[in-house]
Amino acid sequence: MFSVSVRDHFMIAHSFQGQVFGPAQRLHGATYVVDVEFRRDELDADGIVVDIGRAGDALRAVLAALNFRNLDEEPAFRGRNTTTEFMAFVIHERIAAKIAAGELGPNASGLTSLRVTLHESHVAWAAYEGALGG
Amino acid sequence: MFSVSVRDHFMIAHSFQGQVFGPAQRLHGATYVVDVEFRRDELDADGIVVDIGRAGDALRAVLAALNFRNLDEEPAFRGRNTTTEFMAFVIHERIAAKIAAGELGPNASGLTSLRVTLHESHVAWAAYEGALGG
Amino acid sequence: MFSVSVRDHFMIAHSFQGQVFGPAQRLHGATYVVDVEFRRDELDADGIVVDIGRAGDALRAVLAALNFRNLDEEPAFRGRNTTTEFMAFVIHERIAAKIAAGELGPNASGLTSLRVTLHESHVAWAAYEGALGG
Amino acid sequence: MFSVSVRDHFMIAHSFQGQVFGPAQRLHGATYVVDVEFRRDELDADGIVVDIGRAGDALRAVLAALNFRNLDEEPAFRGRNTTTEFMAFVIHERIAAKIAAGELGPNASGLTSLRVTLHESHVAWAAYEGALGG
Amino acid sequence: MFSVSVRDHFMIAHSFQGQVFGPAQRLHGATYVVDVEFRRDELDADGIVVDIGRAGDALRAVLAALNFRNLDEEPAFRGRNTTTEFMAFVIHERIAAKIAAGELGPNASGLTSLRVTLHESHVAWAAYEGALGG
Amino acid sequence: MFSVSVRDHFMIAHSFQGQVFGPAQRLHGATYVVDVEFRRDELDADGIVVDIGRAGDALRAVLAALNFRNLDEEPAFRGRNTTTEFMAFVIHERIAAKIAAGELGPNASGLTSLRVTLHESHVAWAAYEGALGG
Repeated sequence: MFSVSVRDHFMIAHSFQGQVFGPAQRLHGATYVVDVEFRRDELDADGIVVDIGRAGDALRAVLAALNFRNLDEEPAFRGRNTTTEFMAFVIHERIAAKIAAGELGPNASGLTSLRVTLHESHVAWAAYEGALGG
Repeated sequence: MFSVSVRDHFMIAHSFQGQVFGPAQRLHGATYVVDVEFRRDELDADGIVVDIGRAGDALRAVLAALNFRNLDEEPAFRGRNTTTEFMAFVIHERIAAKIAAGELGPNASGLTSLRVTLHESHVAWAAYEGALGG
Repeated sequence: MFSVSVRDHFMIAHSFQGQVFGPAQRLHGATYVVDVEFRRDELDADGIVVDIGRAGDALRAVLAALNFRNLDEEPAFRGRNTTTEFMAFVIHERIAAKIAAGELGPNASGLTSLRVTLHESHVAWAAYEGALGG
Repeated sequence: MFSVSVRDHFMIAHSFQGQVFGPAQRLHGATYVVDVEFRRDELDADGIVVDIGRAGDALRAVLAALNFRNLDEEPAFRGRNTTTEFMAFVIHERIAAKIAAGELGPNASGLTSLRVTLHESHVAWAAYEGALGG
Repeated sequence: MFSVSVRDHFMIAHSFQGQVFGPAQRLHGATYVVDVEFRRDELDADGIVVDIGRAGDALRAVLAALNFRNLDEEPAFRGRNTTTEFMAFVIHERIAAKIAAGELGPNASGLTSLRVTLHESHVAWAAYEGALGG
Repeated sequence: MFSVSVRDHFMIAHSFQGQVFGPAQRLHGATYVVDVEFRRDELDADGIVVDIGRAGDALRAVLAALNFRNLDEEPAFRGRNTTTEFMAFVIHERIAAKIAAGELGPNASGLTSLRVTLHESHVAWAAYEGALGG
């Protein structure tokens, strides 16, 4: 299996609902450094997994829609805790949609799965990985 | 698959038995920076993989029993080389036991596997990953 | 010159006032990974710059008063932009006060200066360094 | 599953053929920081995955044959784009050959697979992982 | 003293003249991860060292003029070894010129010095620091 | 001011004398990742701060004399606590001696100072910096 990974980041405010979160129930925030790993079984004719320029642009676009925002006020997340692991899933879903829509180029149809990792500090991170639809 | 990872460290002395270890047969030591990745298929009702506070406490407790010690004198490791990869297995086993004992909370029963990585320097690390019992 | 450094982190929400901040004028947040470098000219009788246990405790206490908070609502920062560089200064001031109050032990009076660095992402950080009072 | 990883690096010049590469069609270069993860199901009698000294030597030897070179002029890569993902495959193949030739010692026959990761910058990396032949 | 730092990177080919360089006399290349530290004595009225958006843009523009190039063919470096330390000086000079030209905003005139660090691998880096003209 | 830095590591056992060290009074150990920064005012005729090959060799030789040892048994450290900050000083002194002895080449006489940093974990490090003799 081959993979290519790109890194970018976004900065948000949010709060959590539920006693398990302790002081993180208060409004606070985070920088999330995001790694997206694009996977495929064989390289394409150019010798690549994905056009890394388009991959980086797609990630930047997905993060721009979240960056410098209070996630508590985003309609898309109403009634959900925007935990690190949940946000990894959200970003996975949004990049998968861009791949399906052809925004990463026609050869990106050969991608089989994505792993999205969000680093919230030097001592904690979370990830979601899953197949790309067919 | 979802995962959450936490990082901590411990500092030990030890020596190895066997010619393959060369100068590491002498008494020396290491700082191990430890990453534990907790995995599950779906998020729980709070939107999390595991209570990260309890996960960090469990790791701290496991490492406290090893920290600032000479592993050559620990009865638990009699007759074993406490290599980086073996210590990853030991920590996996001890955290798995805490999960089984309910110390990470009742929802932690949804965890499926753990990956434990020990970084011994900027150029070498080792890991053990395995399923959680049932 | 000798130095010892310790690292910890805190997570906050805030917003900025002023056109120079662009979209960061919206309520958002950050994880700050904080490094504090303690400096002195000569080691003390124990061969150390500072009691690293007490240094870490002091940093943890200073960050606990900021962690999981909306800095826009903190009376101490009324009318100030809580930029990364300003927060480095605030933490410098608060740790300096703990040193002056003897909380890092009597030998900490030999410390000459501190450098406080706040990492806000993998591509941006800020610092304040200054002498310790006399 | 157990694993041991070692890190080293090499520095090369090259250019790419194909519009997808944009300005990277010009002659340029890269530092590749290379991680090789050696995997096996059980530890050997010494309690190790692989002789880490021999593993590091094997990686150094493979990289020495590439280091400080213009890959465009290497006969082995004629007609191929020496992308990061392709070079991960090449290094996988060459280390696998050394394992098969017994250069990592007789116990290395217990290794089951390798993952080779090449970091080309702080924001991009690529990997190839695959089974070891039998 | 206050400082703000930003990070970016560029990828080049080059070769060196002189026996001291050994195999690096051959055409090869490097990824340089570049950190620029902007320094000033006091924060400006907005509470910042420099407009970090403009600082990042200035660095990107300086690196774009070097990126994906063979430095051996750049007229600006004729007869010079484009070592890591020399390139740190070049980037220092070019960002200083942008500050002097007002491209980082009028308040950037309060900056006193810059430190430019180029990381060429995980085990080697070089820097140049110097005052800003008056 | 120009600088070039190189990184290497060593692994040792030791214990400390003095109540301030708490559980670190027991025999334990550490991996020290060592950065040495070589500084000079102007580049030499080759455009370099120091021959980086010889600099790396010098560091490797200094660390080889410490690596895989119990520092409590080293005559050179009798009666001293081999703290991270003290070991930074020791390494500074030993590399300075090699420079004075001409082992880094004749042009290394232009070096003005060294900074030696020892990283003992992901959350703690220490340094010594000082001028080179005349």
